[in-house]
Amino acid sequence: MPQLPAFDVMTATCPSRTSLARIANKWTAMVVIALSADRMRFRDLRTTVDGISAKVLTETLRDLERDGIVIRHVYAEIPPRVEYELTALGRTLHAPLQALGLWAEEHFADVLAARESYDARQ
Amino acid sequence: MPQLPAFDVMTATCPSRTSLARIANKWTAMVVIALSADRMRFRDLRTTVDGISAKVLTETLRDLERDGIVIRHVYAEIPPRVEYELTALGRTLHAPLQALGLWAEEHFADVLAARESYDARQ
Repeated sequence: MPQLPAFDVMTATCPSRTSLARIANKWTAMVVIALSADRMRFRDLRTTVDGISAKVLTETLRDLERDGIVIRHVYAEIPPRVEYELTALGRTLHAPLQALGLWAEEHFADVLAARESYDARQ
Repeated sequence: MPQLPAFDVMTATCPSRTSLARIANKWTAMVVIALSADRMRFRDLRTTVDGISAKVLTETLRDLERDGIVIRHVYAEIPPRVEYELTALGRTLHAPLQALGLWAEEHFADVLAARESYDARQ
């Protein structure tokens, strides 16, 4: 007998929805895309994910670390060096999130045309 | 000479980031997944996307209509019937968003284990 899926994001009480909320997020997408190339320091992440505030990047990294998507390496140097890296689990997220980023870039001309048409009708 | 990509979501001032913000969103993901099977009325969408408030569903549908992802059909009946359907552009979003939903369902056990481990360390 085939096993039923354990989780269903369409059910409000299913805890997997908290995971969808975490990954279906523009900052998560950009941080995971940035880290897919290599581990990075906070400062370099802030440069790559252009426009992210220190507060939002801190919160995003903490949430991704809690969900097992990012690992934080702390090196006992003076001053301490901290690097962020995708975990094996986090690397499985790269393809679907990169697909979203590419969609936004490839289809933005269509989206913009739709917005102009919608706004003209209002 | 290869053409450079017109848009880059990693650049804060690139307008394609507004499109990424729209699609990298849990409600967008669930509405697009729900509408991928068939056009639906508001009431049925609210049932399928379990737990969404009327206000958030209204705003999500309006934003998706503005971005050309959803089309709104109004039938002049009494009472008026309104149905929502994915556009051709919206249908190209189904695969990447479904991939995110599946990721959340398939990897939730790992995410939960990571959360418990993280919380135990705090």
